[in-house]
Amino acid sequence: MAGRIESRLGELGIALPAPSTPLANYVPYVRTGNFVVVSGQLPLVDGELLHSGKLGGGVSIEQGQAAARQCLLHVLAHLRAACGGELDRLRRVVRLGGFIAAAADFTEHGQVMDGASDLAVAAFGEAGRHARSTIGVASLPRGAPVEVEGWFEIG
Amino acid sequence: MAGRIESRLGELGIALPAPSTPLANYVPYVRTGNFVVVSGQLPLVDGELLHSGKLGGGVSIEQGQAAARQCLLHVLAHLRAACGGELDRLRRVVRLGGFIAAAADFTEHGQVMDGASDLAVAAFGEAGRHARSTIGVASLPRGAPVEVEGWFEIG
Amino acid sequence: MAGRIESRLGELGIALPAPSTPLANYVPYVRTGNFVVVSGQLPLVDGELLHSGKLGGGVSIEQGQAAARQCLLHVLAHLRAACGGELDRLRRVVRLGGFIAAAADFTEHGQVMDGASDLAVAAFGEAGRHARSTIGVASLPRGAPVEVEGWFEIG
Repeated sequence: MAGRIESRLGELGIALPAPSTPLANYVPYVRTGNFVVVSGQLPLVDGELLHSGKLGGGVSIEQGQAAARQCLLHVLAHLRAACGGELDRLRRVVRLGGFIAAAADFTEHGQVMDGASDLAVAAFGEAGRHARSTIGVASLPRGAPVEVEGWFEIG
Repeated sequence: MAGRIESRLGELGIALPAPSTPLANYVPYVRTGNFVVVSGQLPLVDGELLHSGKLGGGVSIEQGQAAARQCLLHVLAHLRAACGGELDRLRRVVRLGGFIAAAADFTEHGQVMDGASDLAVAAFGEAGRHARSTIGVASLPRGAPVEVEGWFEIG
Repeated sequence: MAGRIESRLGELGIALPAPSTPLANYVPYVRTGNFVVVSGQLPLVDGELLHSGKLGGGVSIEQGQAAARQCLLHVLAHLRAACGGELDRLRRVVRLGGFIAAAADFTEHGQVMDGASDLAVAAFGEAGRHARSTIGVASLPRGAPVEVEGWFEIG
């Protein structure tokens, strides 16, 4: 039976992807005490990047927002696995880290990362309101425009 | 009545700014257990950047240090709010993350970040001695030269 | 008497370096509760960089992997100190952060960071399997090609 959060995701028309396989020798999440730490996720759709390139260099803000949202869907897919399938065990999205592959003169990193943050708040309400740091990086694995990582408290 | 840390800040001639408003859909801090996680802060003074641009590209090391210090003032303003106004509840500055917008050939990121680290140690003494990671990024929100985030343990 | 992990490191032919001195006003690690947070480490050998420069700009993937491994050796040296010399107290490598100084068109950050991740798994087995985020940065302190930080749970 779907939980409260799953129902909310359904109402929003959001289906979480199958948990992605790490690209290398690490795991997608670690649980330690009441914390779940999810590895940085790329904006993959069926194994391919939703967009590639840089903000301020070919990728639009709207495309960047869609990429950030897609990254968070993968983060949430791993969080669900860490919760044994029960997303209702989430107590708080503690922190999201947003890495935006960006030109040296790009300034709208915050707008791009809102693609992830807005989804967190839509899905989890008050528990989805998180701390975050957003930075512009030189490049990302596979040429992705965005990577998102997350820290969560669960019950 | 001012606490011990507030008095120390006063002796240092340091006034914390009013807590800044997040640029987007997130919150300035999250408390989880005994931890406070503060979102990445920019070097704002009355809502404007103290400096803008890049280290190794127009912004001097001294300006970068002043910017890092200003970022930490905002971090501490949020920490104070997270402590219900009582900074004496701080047990330890656990980790500071320093993001320096820097040219590809810049190497003095550590010196710049000391603008924040020196303030933490001056304000909190032994409890202010922290782990940190400092990196050079391609660009930051609003064109800021420095962004600083923090993890704290409070009682 | 050497512990289990120390013996395993010996079998792998791995000697941890002497704990490095921070470049600036911070400490190499902080213990908070059951967590140890280790500051970002550079790939130093006897105080000099093993390699310098950028991935996708003069530093090969193999050199980057060796640099990432060397960074982690320093991380583990500090972890050992945080454990009072007893690495067997490690319960879990929670998260590694990998910062790769990289050209704008570099895409193999994950391969580079495997130099650190493979060592963690070789040394600690199941407890060494970690979450991680790997990003390409514009520049690093001293011109290093890689910096690695770590979060650990200890008993």
